[in-house]
Amino acid sequence: MSWSQPLRGVVPPVCTPLDAAGEVDTASLTRLVEHLVDGGVHGLFALGSSSEVAFLTDHQRTVALETVVDAVNGRVPVLAGAIDMTTPRVEEHARDALAVGADALVATAPFYARTHPVEIARHFRILRERVDLPLFAYDVPVSVHSKLSASLVRELAEDGTIIGLKDSSGDEGSLRRLVVELGGRHGRADGPAPNFSILTGSELTVDAVLLAGVDGVVPGLGNVDPAGYVRLYDAVRGGDLDIAVKEQERLVELFGLVDAGPESEMGRNSSAIGAFKHALRLLGVFSHGVTADPQIQLGADSVAFVEQHLRAAGLLPVR
Amino acid sequence: MSWSQPLRGVVPPVCTPLDAAGEVDTASLTRLVEHLVDGGVHGLFALGSSSEVAFLTDHQRTVALETVVDAVNGRVPVLAGAIDMTTPRVEEHARDALAVGADALVATAPFYARTHPVEIARHFRILRERVDLPLFAYDVPVSVHSKLSASLVRELAEDGTIIGLKDSSGDEGSLRRLVVELGGRHGRADGPAPNFSILTGSELTVDAVLLAGVDGVVPGLGNVDPAGYVRLYDAVRGGDLDIAVKEQERLVELFGLVDAGPESEMGRNSSAIGAFKHALRLLGVFSHGVTADPQIQLGADSVAFVEQHLRAAGLLPVR
Amino acid sequence: MSWSQPLRGVVPPVCTPLDAAGEVDTASLTRLVEHLVDGGVHGLFALGSSSEVAFLTDHQRTVALETVVDAVNGRVPVLAGAIDMTTPRVEEHARDALAVGADALVATAPFYARTHPVEIARHFRILRERVDLPLFAYDVPVSVHSKLSASLVRELAEDGTIIGLKDSSGDEGSLRRLVVELGGRHGRADGPAPNFSILTGSELTVDAVLLAGVDGVVPGLGNVDPAGYVRLYDAVRGGDLDIAVKEQERLVELFGLVDAGPESEMGRNSSAIGAFKHALRLLGVFSHGVTADPQIQLGADSVAFVEQHLRAAGLLPVR
Amino acid sequence: MSWSQPLRGVVPPVCTPLDAAGEVDTASLTRLVEHLVDGGVHGLFALGSSSEVAFLTDHQRTVALETVVDAVNGRVPVLAGAIDMTTPRVEEHARDALAVGADALVATAPFYARTHPVEIARHFRILRERVDLPLFAYDVPVSVHSKLSASLVRELAEDGTIIGLKDSSGDEGSLRRLVVELGGRHGRADGPAPNFSILTGSELTVDAVLLAGVDGVVPGLGNVDPAGYVRLYDAVRGGDLDIAVKEQERLVELFGLVDAGPESEMGRNSSAIGAFKHALRLLGVFSHGVTADPQIQLGADSVAFVEQHLRAAGLLPVR
Repeated sequence: MSWSQPLRGVVPPVCTPLDAAGEVDTASLTRLVEHLVDGGVHGLFALGSSSEVAFLTDHQRTVALETVVDAVNGRVPVLAGAIDMTTPRVEEHARDALAVGADALVATAPFYARTHPVEIARHFRILRERVDLPLFAYDVPVSVHSKLSASLVRELAEDGTIIGLKDSSGDEGSLRRLVVELGGRHGRADGPAPNFSILTGSELTVDAVLLAGVDGVVPGLGNVDPAGYVRLYDAVRGGDLDIAVKEQERLVELFGLVDAGPESEMGRNSSAIGAFKHALRLLGVFSHGVTADPQIQLGADSVAFVEQHLRAAGLLPVR
Repeated sequence: MSWSQPLRGVVPPVCTPLDAAGEVDTASLTRLVEHLVDGGVHGLFALGSSSEVAFLTDHQRTVALETVVDAVNGRVPVLAGAIDMTTPRVEEHARDALAVGADALVATAPFYARTHPVEIARHFRILRERVDLPLFAYDVPVSVHSKLSASLVRELAEDGTIIGLKDSSGDEGSLRRLVVELGGRHGRADGPAPNFSILTGSELTVDAVLLAGVDGVVPGLGNVDPAGYVRLYDAVRGGDLDIAVKEQERLVELFGLVDAGPESEMGRNSSAIGAFKHALRLLGVFSHGVTADPQIQLGADSVAFVEQHLRAAGLLPVR
Repeated sequence: MSWSQPLRGVVPPVCTPLDAAGEVDTASLTRLVEHLVDGGVHGLFALGSSSEVAFLTDHQRTVALETVVDAVNGRVPVLAGAIDMTTPRVEEHARDALAVGADALVATAPFYARTHPVEIARHFRILRERVDLPLFAYDVPVSVHSKLSASLVRELAEDGTIIGLKDSSGDEGSLRRLVVELGGRHGRADGPAPNFSILTGSELTVDAVLLAGVDGVVPGLGNVDPAGYVRLYDAVRGGDLDIAVKEQERLVELFGLVDAGPESEMGRNSSAIGAFKHALRLLGVFSHGVTADPQIQLGADSVAFVEQHLRAAGLLPVR
Repeated sequence: MSWSQPLRGVVPPVCTPLDAAGEVDTASLTRLVEHLVDGGVHGLFALGSSSEVAFLTDHQRTVALETVVDAVNGRVPVLAGAIDMTTPRVEEHARDALAVGADALVATAPFYARTHPVEIARHFRILRERVDLPLFAYDVPVSVHSKLSASLVRELAEDGTIIGLKDSSGDEGSLRRLVVELGGRHGRADGPAPNFSILTGSELTVDAVLLAGVDGVVPGLGNVDPAGYVRLYDAVRGGDLDIAVKEQERLVELFGLVDAGPESEMGRNSSAIGAFKHALRLLGVFSHGVTADPQIQLGADSVAFVEQHLRAAGLLPVR
């Protein structure tokens, strides 16, 4: 994989299908990779939050990543999450990802232990130094409970520690400042970090963030409707913003399926991931809609709610 | 003021100039109103966070609001913040605003005391019932430490309790869901709350939020460069998004003036408000750049930093 | 009132009874003062969080404070909360409290607007300088969303800005460090701030904090059972810790009445304050159990739950 | 190891010494175990937060735990942290701990992924069911960003899922309610979970929490001065609270060593753990004071600060 150009486009975080015993369902995962590549996506992000990486054992992580890498077979780049608490543990996952053939790593700031911004910078620099794979910083305060500052990201971009940012902070104002500091929408290639790639976890404001100069998006919902996100991406890049807004609004309505699970009985995460997985099952991609322990499984009413959203979005025939 | 149409456009939160003794400088405030109306803004929001409402005594609030209402003289609508901890205290400010001639009220959820969503809904309903002025809900978790849920806003919009939302939550994904639930960018007039007005506090993503279907923006930086925000607004409404992005990028760079104050010595709020006030002084609108107690005042280096941003943005001649 | 000695003992935050119209019920409030002074308390804290200060208009605050000061008639000191967002607004409440005859002020860090520690220190210094009443700092992060650092408290104690701390942070480790830094349990009078008074909002660990060297407690539940807290205080001071623990455990069980309201329908604050007020009504002290808008009122089942706790604690005869 | 009696006493979280290459220094760790057992401690907690468990690879965790278990050789029980994001990953650590010979497991709520209280309960039940070791719940919101509710702990205690709680929430009021609900200081053995053991992470309020009825303490500072904590524990159990308070105050002053590192350059965690490790080096127990990556190391001034605290506390001769 050459990284002479920054990564741009739709890069879904790949859901990890499980079988009834809770093990990685490699046949379903292979089908998902085809579903995504057929949909026209520009890259894949394996072992991210939407992949339930926090719930997979080390062995399961390796199986999942191997399956994705093999199924992709070089057609698009595969980014691999190396998600753990601190540098020594992340480094081990990073070595595994290198061995399996990932094209780049994605790592968060340390979590569980409280660290200082100077230590967070050191964390990324050590990882880059010790493992020979391009590195994306993953800003995900909802999980790690600290935010990467724009100045830290810019510093790591300019000295070549990271080749990109995966921003899931939801702070679009700060992100816009970063884009402008790096040269703005049209001047990025002449800016201080010309090959730097800015991706967001946005599912609901893709038209807007692309307009602002972000390079790509990593939408969890892109597992369910990759072609929709690719159409949306192409519409923005082609300058047809009316079509982009309409496609985005359709996807916003589809996104409503994440509310499938009853709030009084299960977590928001379980509800959203469970909904994506059952949607993929209803679309014939997955064999099961199972999420990992200790998550609560969606019940029949919740699954019907998911199905109704798929029909309304035109992904299943209306009965 | 007629509210038969939802409020749309640029609605700056009006800074409150103070004199050396810390009292409201009504002459400067009158000049600011002219500066804003001349800049083409579509409304004014007095007594909001950028107005230092939290620092003004009741008497100062009344003086400031009266000055704004008199200076505007009906040319654009004046929204008035009624900012206090709970319903009985907010109600008193609301009555004052009604007496002074504001066109609408803006109120947050209760703060200081912890309340339940059911109590927050009750808060807005009691205010609307007791004070005869149209009401905007102000979602500002950074100040009140709770977020108005989309379902609560939608419920209050549909039953007519509120005619609009001033969203300063920074959660653009949730806001997009609300826009779509209310009919989407083009279908709002046929949606469940056709006259409902969605405003955001966005300064840095105005092009993006307007593209998404938001009605208007309340940028603190609009005090400094109202004409810039109006050009940006007009460019989006006219469909010329390339010009909009360029104007937005210029304003993002100008926004850098909020970093004027040294982080180790003063708050982010004092730095930003102080920078706006000194910018207005340098532009000849304000007589002083003073902020209210207990805020630290910007020093000479900080003021030079502000001046440099004004020159770079073309608001002062480059020396 | 002489402050030659630091305030020590049980200093309940005085609940504010309201009538059916939501106005201060001065007759009930006068009875409450008698109930507390009869119970042996060592001071009163009016206009604090448990007084619903956040819900009272300025006029209601003055009525409540006047009623307390008049009813106490100098028998114990009266501390008055001056609770508002920033220095200029707090200063106005402080002047009102001085005019009405309070013996000391209690003020929090600024809230709603974000401030820097340097600005927080300035806030207390300006208040002390401008209003001629002894000042307690009120550390209540759950309401103001910032914590007073031990170093700031110590600095303000040593330079005489504040004569005491009312700690409601719940951080008993930090509080213990402060006690030790000021000289420890036995050496406080020889320490760097010999007349400084440390009070906590503790209701559930009074035995423990007094053992550690704290001077006094400000228990909301002390409205309901002042004599119980005085017995507990006396037992610790007398060195009879077995009796102290038993009394504390009885009060912990009584404290269970704060869970009266259903969590799905009302806030924790409304439930707790409503429970205290209904308990006082059942004890014949208050005429009503009403809490201020927008709080939800306790229903019949909740009131029965309160009554059952009073009986179990021996405050009402067991039926 | 028999658990017929609840664990009571001083149970330090065992620091993990590292060598210059960052590997577990087993010789130093063996000396630390002797230092602790010689100090009279009643149990050891390996692989907890103070052990830098978040920074150790799986292999390093196993080496550290084996070293502790071997060195202890059954003299006191060894609790082992099984710290990871979710059930499947925690289960793997738990099996490792069982294989190595730990006497009990300590597990937190899930982190990184957001979960629901129902899922948290399920997490503990699955762990207990799948791994045949007694289980302690570890309540550490500062690391996992959710708090175990008292009702959840009580439910898991009463149905036998957990045999104890390690409370590092700092919420001593809630903890007191739990103690009382389980029977109070003297009635625990007749309460609903008679063999349940309540431990706290308290270092600064050990006298107070023991007075309140907590069974034991897990003080990080206990690595440095185990005999001091044992004297404190014995004094409370023997009813000599004056001696207990004096000992606690000495330990509070010693605790000041955690401020060794400059806040502007390193995290609070690195400073505290680095200080403990350098203190152990100065006491001749450890060969190095190194902390794991990406933590910043203490400089010479910081080490001198640590040394000064050891002398002041009587742990090194005063020069």
